[in-house]
Amino acid sequence: MKAVGIIVEYNPFHNGHWHHLQETKAKTAADCLIAVMSGNFLQRGEPAIVSKWARTKMALAAGVDIVIELPYVFAVQAAEQFAHGAVRLLDALGCQELCFGSESGDIAAFLTAAKTWFQHKEKFDSLVRSELARGQSFPKANAEAWRQLDSDALDLSKPNNVLGFAYVKAIWQNKLAIVPRTIPRLAAGYHDESFSHSSIASATSLRKVLRQTGQLERIAAYIPSTTAEQLQQYRLTYGRWHDWEAYFPLLKYRLLTSSEEDLRRIAGVEEGIEYRLKQKIVSAETFATFIAATKTKRYTWTRLQRLCVHVLTNFTKEEQNKAAAPTYIRLLGMNETGRRYLQQVKKELALPLIAKAAKLNGDPLYEQEKRATAVYTAAFPEPLYSAALKEEYATAPIYFSGMERK
Amino acid sequence: MKAVGIIVEYNPFHNGHWHHLQETKAKTAADCLIAVMSGNFLQRGEPAIVSKWARTKMALAAGVDIVIELPYVFAVQAAEQFAHGAVRLLDALGCQELCFGSESGDIAAFLTAAKTWFQHKEKFDSLVRSELARGQSFPKANAEAWRQLDSDALDLSKPNNVLGFAYVKAIWQNKLAIVPRTIPRLAAGYHDESFSHSSIASATSLRKVLRQTGQLERIAAYIPSTTAEQLQQYRLTYGRWHDWEAYFPLLKYRLLTSSEEDLRRIAGVEEGIEYRLKQKIVSAETFATFIAATKTKRYTWTRLQRLCVHVLTNFTKEEQNKAAAPTYIRLLGMNETGRRYLQQVKKELALPLIAKAAKLNGDPLYEQEKRATAVYTAAFPEPLYSAALKEEYATAPIYFSGMERK
Repeated sequence: MKAVGIIVEYNPFHNGHWHHLQETKAKTAADCLIAVMSGNFLQRGEPAIVSKWARTKMALAAGVDIVIELPYVFAVQAAEQFAHGAVRLLDALGCQELCFGSESGDIAAFLTAAKTWFQHKEKFDSLVRSELARGQSFPKANAEAWRQLDSDALDLSKPNNVLGFAYVKAIWQNKLAIVPRTIPRLAAGYHDESFSHSSIASATSLRKVLRQTGQLERIAAYIPSTTAEQLQQYRLTYGRWHDWEAYFPLLKYRLLTSSEEDLRRIAGVEEGIEYRLKQKIVSAETFATFIAATKTKRYTWTRLQRLCVHVLTNFTKEEQNKAAAPTYIRLLGMNETGRRYLQQVKKELALPLIAKAAKLNGDPLYEQEKRATAVYTAAFPEPLYSAALKEEYATAPIYFSGMERK
Repeated sequence: MKAVGIIVEYNPFHNGHWHHLQETKAKTAADCLIAVMSGNFLQRGEPAIVSKWARTKMALAAGVDIVIELPYVFAVQAAEQFAHGAVRLLDALGCQELCFGSESGDIAAFLTAAKTWFQHKEKFDSLVRSELARGQSFPKANAEAWRQLDSDALDLSKPNNVLGFAYVKAIWQNKLAIVPRTIPRLAAGYHDESFSHSSIASATSLRKVLRQTGQLERIAAYIPSTTAEQLQQYRLTYGRWHDWEAYFPLLKYRLLTSSEEDLRRIAGVEEGIEYRLKQKIVSAETFATFIAATKTKRYTWTRLQRLCVHVLTNFTKEEQNKAAAPTYIRLLGMNETGRRYLQQVKKELALPLIAKAAKLNGDPLYEQEKRATAVYTAAFPEPLYSAALKEEYATAPIYFSGMERK
């Protein structure tokens, strides 16, 4: 069986993701489609709108055969570390290809860019450093260094090109036998907050509508029915969807009761930002106003969000430095095809395949996952908090036996 | 002017406290009555039912002339450290006498007991150690060691005798020129949870009635009208009174996101209790069930409560060890008599007298006070949280010009 990997967040799963799945299947002739998915918190430093379990159901219903979890220590990271964890996991599960969506849509451009990068790595790094020294943010410093290398192969001001580029580099750096492929993304840009296409809208814009109106029917045209059902069911069960504001009281409490020394131990706290965080939090009444007041040219909104997730989950530099590579493959869900595939490869896997998370107690990556879940579920009042917390340890992988949407 | 000190928590101020004030004035012929009062969190490891400001108003209305704050680092401690901080502050403000309520009511008994203790200190300590080694709690080990010393001067199974004994020892150990006096407490025992006297009830029993019924009129017979007004006003302004359950979500979040190593840095975390805390918190839905599930013969309810306040406020062993003695006198309120007294003594004070807390920024004792306030006010939703937090820094000492209750 030919396994093909995809790297996803599904926050929530929408028609653009559906398109990506169909194109991936058509282009790769995959027998088994494996998604590595972020868990409670996402790459840009935000809580997922619904739990990993609900999002796994969305993925399986749309035709993904296996969903595994990208551990927190890789998920809530800049592109390079995110890509590193994701491709290592797909490789560990035996994927022959990786198929990602990008603004470019041309894999040759990524390969050319990656070659340029490897050839001029030292010059590139020194250009980045000098841009950083001029006070630029990491993304801007990277883009500018890239421009100065005079490579027009790939537009690295586009967020999905940046991620795709990181995937290709990570495959090469890890010397993995995974063939990268890319599919052009439809219409909507990742960050677009307005609807611009009749059935395709970015996850960002969908979440914004839900946050502002609370009305599922407002986004119905842009999501499969399973996503609507899962979002509906989740709100019925847990009383809410998740956004940063739900965690702001915890963040404020944590920052106010942490010393500067405590904060310096947290991953991503550099260059004295701890003083600014402690200063700005005192009178901030919402997360949005807090980040707006705190951000600088150097500390972008996304970087601050990610850092704040690390503060909330008490994720330290020491823990980050120790997280060199995935230590397990955590299965979140599968269908019959996925089950057969796992049956076939399970004896050759490079990492332990884990169905019951309780077996992972003591694994440093999973200990951080538990903390992330403890934060994520703290958005619920008791007794829901305790119940949701228990699901982290006790939920068996979801087996999807339903008909796939045609 | 003759200044006399009292050591109080007023949680809330009730008729028993009123009686203590009248007796103190009658017995000592004080010109100025100075109360050193716990702030946000109290000696037994509980949040105060209302803020230090509201409780200061209760005290001033009842005839206390000056109210100063006992810093967190002394307030949330076992009797010895609590007494140490309190008598040092009263001495720093020039008090000639200390007058405390006790079950015994006989100062000679305290002096005899203190003499016995100083004479047999080593034997006493070794008896305590051997009781602790047998698995007893600190209070039980102390009481048993005392019994074995064969001193029947003072019944140290009574909580106010224990505190009074600690005051006398602290005065002697610090070689202070303060004369200790005691007044017999009326009827109700400190821990009594039921009403047993027509107008006197313990603060514990009053809080219990308020917690269970929310009805102020149910306790009206046991409190001065000012207490009723302050409690009423506080609930109108802030929407609630404070109890441990309000902080349980924060405690659960903090414990679940702290490593065992983090917890071992917290004051009061000894003997591996960190493992038990992390184990029991997972399925605990209330503070009461959590403590009930966690407590042992060695870790009493009060000790655990105190430890949990330290976890909440991130108060470390290192910070505790550095807190040798008060570094400032923080004025919470005064009346005209108090103002005149301070005018008279202010140039001779051994410690800086602080009216505006913002001046204390950077003082380690006050930094911990700010953290305690950040936790205490976290019981409010925004924008009240930010507003209440600001009061900690910005509130001027209360000047009480009203008529004292006769």
